[in-house]
Amino acid sequence: MKMQCSSFLAAVLLITASFSHADEGMWLFNDLPVEHLKSTYDFEPTSEWTNHLMKACVRFNVGGSASFISSNGLVLTNHHVGSDTLHKLSSEDNDLYTNGFYARSLDQELKAPDLELNQLINIKDVTDEVNRAVSDGLSASDAAKARRAAIATIEKAALDESGLRSDVVTLYGGGRYHLYQYKKYTDVRLVWSPEAASAFFGGDADNFEYPRYCLDACIFRVYEDDKPAKIEHFFKWSENGAAENELVFVAGNPGRTSRIFTYDAMKFARDHRVPYVLDFLRRREILLQQFSLQGPEAERRAKDDLFGMQNSRKAYLGELAALQDPAVMADKLASEQALLAKIKADPKLQEYASAWSTIAEIQKRKAKRLGKGPRLSTRLFNIAQTLVQMAEEDKKPSADRLAEFRDSARESLERQLFSGAPIYKDLELALLADSIARTVELNGADSELCQTILAGKSPTERAAELMSTRLDEVDFRKELATGGAQAIESSDDPMIKLALALDDVVREDRKVEEEMAEIEKQAYAQIAEAIFATQGTSAYPDATFTLRLAFGPVKSYQEKGETIPAWTNVDGAFAHEDAHKGQKDFSLPESWHTARGKLPGSTPFNFVCTADIIGGNSGSPVVNKDLELVGLIFDGNIQSLSADYLYTDRQGRATSVHSSVIRDALKYVYNAEDLANQLGN
Amino acid sequence: MKMQCSSFLAAVLLITASFSHADEGMWLFNDLPVEHLKSTYDFEPTSEWTNHLMKACVRFNVGGSASFISSNGLVLTNHHVGSDTLHKLSSEDNDLYTNGFYARSLDQELKAPDLELNQLINIKDVTDEVNRAVSDGLSASDAAKARRAAIATIEKAALDESGLRSDVVTLYGGGRYHLYQYKKYTDVRLVWSPEAASAFFGGDADNFEYPRYCLDACIFRVYEDDKPAKIEHFFKWSENGAAENELVFVAGNPGRTSRIFTYDAMKFARDHRVPYVLDFLRRREILLQQFSLQGPEAERRAKDDLFGMQNSRKAYLGELAALQDPAVMADKLASEQALLAKIKADPKLQEYASAWSTIAEIQKRKAKRLGKGPRLSTRLFNIAQTLVQMAEEDKKPSADRLAEFRDSARESLERQLFSGAPIYKDLELALLADSIARTVELNGADSELCQTILAGKSPTERAAELMSTRLDEVDFRKELATGGAQAIESSDDPMIKLALALDDVVREDRKVEEEMAEIEKQAYAQIAEAIFATQGTSAYPDATFTLRLAFGPVKSYQEKGETIPAWTNVDGAFAHEDAHKGQKDFSLPESWHTARGKLPGSTPFNFVCTADIIGGNSGSPVVNKDLELVGLIFDGNIQSLSADYLYTDRQGRATSVHSSVIRDALKYVYNAEDLANQLGN
Repeated sequence: MKMQCSSFLAAVLLITASFSHADEGMWLFNDLPVEHLKSTYDFEPTSEWTNHLMKACVRFNVGGSASFISSNGLVLTNHHVGSDTLHKLSSEDNDLYTNGFYARSLDQELKAPDLELNQLINIKDVTDEVNRAVSDGLSASDAAKARRAAIATIEKAALDESGLRSDVVTLYGGGRYHLYQYKKYTDVRLVWSPEAASAFFGGDADNFEYPRYCLDACIFRVYEDDKPAKIEHFFKWSENGAAENELVFVAGNPGRTSRIFTYDAMKFARDHRVPYVLDFLRRREILLQQFSLQGPEAERRAKDDLFGMQNSRKAYLGELAALQDPAVMADKLASEQALLAKIKADPKLQEYASAWSTIAEIQKRKAKRLGKGPRLSTRLFNIAQTLVQMAEEDKKPSADRLAEFRDSARESLERQLFSGAPIYKDLELALLADSIARTVELNGADSELCQTILAGKSPTERAAELMSTRLDEVDFRKELATGGAQAIESSDDPMIKLALALDDVVREDRKVEEEMAEIEKQAYAQIAEAIFATQGTSAYPDATFTLRLAFGPVKSYQEKGETIPAWTNVDGAFAHEDAHKGQKDFSLPESWHTARGKLPGSTPFNFVCTADIIGGNSGSPVVNKDLELVGLIFDGNIQSLSADYLYTDRQGRATSVHSSVIRDALKYVYNAEDLANQLGN
Repeated sequence: MKMQCSSFLAAVLLITASFSHADEGMWLFNDLPVEHLKSTYDFEPTSEWTNHLMKACVRFNVGGSASFISSNGLVLTNHHVGSDTLHKLSSEDNDLYTNGFYARSLDQELKAPDLELNQLINIKDVTDEVNRAVSDGLSASDAAKARRAAIATIEKAALDESGLRSDVVTLYGGGRYHLYQYKKYTDVRLVWSPEAASAFFGGDADNFEYPRYCLDACIFRVYEDDKPAKIEHFFKWSENGAAENELVFVAGNPGRTSRIFTYDAMKFARDHRVPYVLDFLRRREILLQQFSLQGPEAERRAKDDLFGMQNSRKAYLGELAALQDPAVMADKLASEQALLAKIKADPKLQEYASAWSTIAEIQKRKAKRLGKGPRLSTRLFNIAQTLVQMAEEDKKPSADRLAEFRDSARESLERQLFSGAPIYKDLELALLADSIARTVELNGADSELCQTILAGKSPTERAAELMSTRLDEVDFRKELATGGAQAIESSDDPMIKLALALDDVVREDRKVEEEMAEIEKQAYAQIAEAIFATQGTSAYPDATFTLRLAFGPVKSYQEKGETIPAWTNVDGAFAHEDAHKGQKDFSLPESWHTARGKLPGSTPFNFVCTADIIGGNSGSPVVNKDLELVGLIFDGNIQSLSADYLYTDRQGRATSVHSSVIRDALKYVYNAEDLANQLGN
């Protein structure tokens, strides 16, 4: 696994690449590569086709994708996308993540404490409206401010008019602004989940490998007015899935790509940012492993975070491997130099050339800032910071606030802030102590920042002191939020006091980051324009955690002289278990062994296709031309991990759970015939 | 565990601290704190006492301590000190590390492939001889060169005269030079080792914790002329061990301390070096974990390295925690400022004040150099580099060579270089690929160094290419060594070619490091003199992996309001197992369960005392005033991990295996009555 994007990986919004490989691209739903599909695959999507596909897709705001698979509200996603909720619904005595779950009737379905699902209803180009707000001659920071205000106004008006969640999305680094409007589902209930041993069969060892045998799926149901929601657009269930070389489509929410990156930006990633992130991931992985050694309950509490670290670590290692490949960098440099030569030769385009040096300068600033500043990322500190900032921001008109505090985002913000999901103070303590220690390492213990944080104590002592906070209590959070600035300023909660003490430096840090991002964005917008002007080809923007269409055939590939078949099957899963006897995470659950006689060994399990995906695509439906569901994206293979910077279909593949194994497992392994019969109906 | 010092941690030779706590100190055998022992403990060591103790001690050159425990050559050390040899004697089918070993007769004892044990015979002060070689007015680098040549001459003459291994040791940063002469034992055979599950009971979770229940012991035998060596100085076995508050002595080889460090040097450690080392350790820990996921044989191959990483990671985290404690740093600063005030007030001492700023300057240079340069630490590359350098160095007279290539060190060097211990190429590949990737991250892929290393390939591809080396074959290594420069230069072995290509930069890097170390050493020598001059107290030099005496009572301590008893016992071990049912590394081996009826539950298992120890003390004998063996050092508790910089006996404790549990386990668990009867006889 896992093609999930984590909030940790949030990055600058990015841009566009020219169209170079057959199946490359994460396409906008309002700008699909119609010509290409027609000429290459003799397929012409109608507007009904596109509309149905778009509306049958669902976004999980925790960082994944999903789809409607029945008229009565069933939603299919990955087990590892649902895991955040599975953990939140679990306790020491009832570990749904590990043991699985099945609601045999509606009243047994379990309500998620803070899930928000989004169904994309409409996309509108608002570029002109946004740009009109920015008069000529404004400084970068004033321009950004004016643009933010215009965006807030558009979002607010759209929300008020439609009642829909309304987000303006920046595409091509600012070349385009699109308004995305979503229907929100906030009553989401768990219907079925398999055991982790089946969903994550092969564990960290098999993650990002292929062949695979993971039932990485789980099913929720959306409710409205306390009843299963009536869904118009949902996918039918394919009888047998897709055939070899059959064209399939993947519709989901890829989180971030960097295909437009300049050579200098890739060097910064290679030599600074990615190694820095990897050091952080390894550090936290070890920390969570150590925490887990305390016993089974500690292990359970840390599991979701630990999986996230391991998954990201493997993904980033793959990304770094691509960056450290001299051939990859040489290709980038050659194409960049060719483009620059064209630009410099054309008087109308010459002005764009400075964009590259602007970006190079920003990389230097980024390298110096890496790890500097306040980075105390733990749940309780984040809550404190949100409360402190909300009190201050709420004094301003909505359009002037930091983005997450605007009226249009308030409902989503409060859902998170007042979530009743458990917060484990022992785990928080471990994370906070390490987070403080790391801040000390990266900023120097004698820095003013660290003096403020430490307050004369060691990181461990200080973290222990801060853990007397009451912010783990939802009522206390509500009390502070209701009390506003007055309540915050007079609070003697130590975490609130720390967040208050750090607020100026946190805001200043964010301001500088946003200014740098703005400069970079404008430079990338210029590069995008230069690419359009010189290459004149169709292009897709870099991923922005919004709905995109990818496609490509189901297809085997060659590795070390062998053909890796496109499919695996149930017999293969049992053989894989035998081959790894005694190894951690290689034991199929008892339910599978019990079902072995009934479950057909020939049922396809996982399969690969060439669609262009990345983190955030986890849980994306894979459909055929007739919009029948044939699979469920859950991973990419190792060779696909260069996808942040470049697409390749030589060996790179997207990995899916086959629709048939979901149906057959429900029937034969989980005795959920009733649920199986609802699939696609 | 583990108070072993790893070659990775080799550091600048360091200096001296003033005597401040009752039981602080790692004392030179030729300068014991006789007055203090007399006044505090009413104990006066005679020269016979000291001589017997010194000669009954043994140094393991892999980085640990040990002792003679019988007249027929038995040597007692920790399982984790012997583990290097246990792994080298193991194979896929016969894992001695995990399963344990017992030779029921002499002919079953297994010869270690490359162990060298040293017994200290004599210490002689050669300070004047060394200093005479350095005329006034030489530059730092010329002075260092002259000093190195003088040391080489002294060592060579001493070796030729006595046949003993002769090492000149730099103490107090160059305030003193002592000649240490050792009898070498190179025919060392394994007699007994328990299962890892008993030796390392509680695993990584319990490491550096207390209470503990580890039989972290194993027994070797030294041979001469193919017969068990006759040993004059060995320890008798104590009948019942030591009593609460009884004074005990620890004689062993602490590897490195930094008690003399200036405030600036501690800041460099806190803000740069220790975080840097921890990043490396975590990185390699994850890498080795990932390698182990391939299966049981991979896990076995990686185990020794993995343990080393985990152990060091925990030790360094403890060290960092001490450095990040503002109280610790404030104490250091206050005492340093007091000393500086005295110095500046005394015209005779004023010149010493510059030492502090010299050291501060060096810390800045170190911070800039951290991670820069060629650092490809894998076995096969190290072998290639040794062969390449040996061919070049052998052209020079012995005294002009790099230290490890001098005649006096040749026998030890060749023992390592031509060791038949297995080298696993799959493991080497993983380590080398990561080592190259890390070098690229730290130096930038475009640096000349990385261009040389990568030769146009990605780190993984290049590592795979280099793995076609034949340096894993001992005969091939011997052939190249015999062939000298001619054979090296004409070799087409890719690893030799890389080592040749990097030789200039490796040598230059080492030269700069040694020059910096020399400047620092001289500054610390000045500080040491200033301390002597102003405080006039008895002092011990920082640890140098040479024999030292530490001491203190067996003593319980307070933690979180509870008394932690000094001892644990066998019943406690079984209770600890029950309390951690199902957790990794918390199952006692079958042999212990079988023996439970016979083995007295009241037999003491582990115990703590206040002696001042650090990495390298692993395997040190703990003896009473009558020089009877009462224990075997194997660890320190978490609170002792500040020991690199400061000693504390408030909660800090050294942890030992009790002599009685070794005897009783041999009798009742391992059915080794015969061996048990030889203990101390």
